[in-house]
Amino acid sequence: MRTIDWVDGAVELVDQTLLPDECVMLRVHTVDDLVDAIGRLAVRGAPALGVAGALGVVLADGDPAQIARLRAARPTAVNLAWGVDQAVAHLHEGRESVLAAALRVRDDDIAACLAMGERGADLLEGDRLRIMTVCNTGGLAAVERGTALGVVQTLHERGRLSEVLALETRPLLQGARLTTWELARMGAPHRLVADSAGPYLLARGEVDAVLVGADRIAANGDTANKIGSYALALGAERAGVPFVVVAPESTIDKNTPTGEHIEIEDRGADEVVTIRGVRVAPEGTRALNPAFDVTPHDLITAIVTDKRVIRP
Amino acid sequence: MRTIDWVDGAVELVDQTLLPDECVMLRVHTVDDLVDAIGRLAVRGAPALGVAGALGVVLADGDPAQIARLRAARPTAVNLAWGVDQAVAHLHEGRESVLAAALRVRDDDIAACLAMGERGADLLEGDRLRIMTVCNTGGLAAVERGTALGVVQTLHERGRLSEVLALETRPLLQGARLTTWELARMGAPHRLVADSAGPYLLARGEVDAVLVGADRIAANGDTANKIGSYALALGAERAGVPFVVVAPESTIDKNTPTGEHIEIEDRGADEVVTIRGVRVAPEGTRALNPAFDVTPHDLITAIVTDKRVIRP
Repeated sequence: MRTIDWVDGAVELVDQTLLPDECVMLRVHTVDDLVDAIGRLAVRGAPALGVAGALGVVLADGDPAQIARLRAARPTAVNLAWGVDQAVAHLHEGRESVLAAALRVRDDDIAACLAMGERGADLLEGDRLRIMTVCNTGGLAAVERGTALGVVQTLHERGRLSEVLALETRPLLQGARLTTWELARMGAPHRLVADSAGPYLLARGEVDAVLVGADRIAANGDTANKIGSYALALGAERAGVPFVVVAPESTIDKNTPTGEHIEIEDRGADEVVTIRGVRVAPEGTRALNPAFDVTPHDLITAIVTDKRVIRP
Repeated sequence: MRTIDWVDGAVELVDQTLLPDECVMLRVHTVDDLVDAIGRLAVRGAPALGVAGALGVVLADGDPAQIARLRAARPTAVNLAWGVDQAVAHLHEGRESVLAAALRVRDDDIAACLAMGERGADLLEGDRLRIMTVCNTGGLAAVERGTALGVVQTLHERGRLSEVLALETRPLLQGARLTTWELARMGAPHRLVADSAGPYLLARGEVDAVLVGADRIAANGDTANKIGSYALALGAERAGVPFVVVAPESTIDKNTPTGEHIEIEDRGADEVVTIRGVRVAPEGTRALNPAFDVTPHDLITAIVTDKRVIRP
């Protein structure tokens, strides 16, 4: 199953808001519908957003206003704008060239995830690895296999995985809903934990490596990723456990010098004061909801891309 | 309003599982019902558990088996066993003495919370303080006012509080449900945040001090508190922000040499895979659910008790 693809003249994607209860494919014919799907996280994950951006340019049919809106649909992941730009570069050659470029973004993502899985698994030492991760960085965050969870899959295929401790990832519970679903499908042993327990379980010696994805990597190696990644990096450093970022080269943004220059999306109070439609705080409670945080490069043991291993 | 009290021959307590939707008083006549109320967190918070333990001995009417069961109803907070022991010491003097001892535990808690509020507010510097806290440490965790949130209340009464950033405190959402409710009642400005955002907001410079309670303080100053406290301590250290523990002297357990000797309660998978009755992870998902973590003393700026300020 591909999370996002071009099928019969439209973008087809798994509606991730319905998982794990239902696995429904959405067909998207317009940029409006694609921007909506991106905004409500029906499609999410930095690599998948790159593919969505590229395929969206085909739907935009050369309309600069639509392309600009698509490019800005979410601010933190660089891959969305990058994917748009890959396709836009071929606008002057006509629609077929734009489509071909977008399909290359898709195919390159599949190849990149495979390469990251191999390289990440090679990098880690040990045979019965206990991996901690946050958010969802599996096939659902890409086209197939994914980034950090792609490394987990390769470890599992090599018989080197003992267990995954998956953080539930409030507020939108991508870990609880999506990562557990993917791990169950691949038959990998796993347990779910509250986000706040991550650093403590590291201190208690229950984790051999932390693997996370990235939404944007600044030129100096500072990395924006799902909120909670920074807390894990602090916990990993104190526990002497490797903290490894897994992301394609397209996530590296040389135009952003440091993490301080990365715009962090605040997604508003509703996601915090309600959980899957159930109100958890008194009426009128305000909230602060940064969707991402920045991990300074000195807390990152290694960045594994499809091309290399960077040690910031 | 008192969170727990002795009224007309029975223990009366606020059923905290129903907050913030309803504020219902429970009347408890037997140890069985009290143990049940403690187990399902209808009454919770280290100081309130101390009072519950002491009053429960009155209900036990000298039965050693009931007293033993009450004393062990929750393992991590030392106050429960301490409260039981305060009343048990008077068993040989008859029921009236036991009741008088239990009421002294209640009255001492009220006085201790007032004293901690004053001392904690005196300790902190600055006039427009932005405080971060986790779980609920207010009047609902004690008889009145509370520990860390009691300091917040004193700061607010002195006109020195700018805002509270309250962590929601998964899995049971005491921050989202209870702390916001108490802050709204006291008219203190506050915003709710996901637990995983705490360390990042510290790094972003949005917090002047972290105030937390404690369930057990080891002889060396290592402190067990609600899961997520350790992550905040790591974040506070890196950000150069004070991390202050507020707890009555009864929370200090000289028989526990270090944090490694504190038993940490695991409350099972259900609390993690469901949220207020709504399933969030696929059927069959396992979970690890430590309800507390241990913050090593070197990460603690100060421990404020009703008697003194300790700098571990």
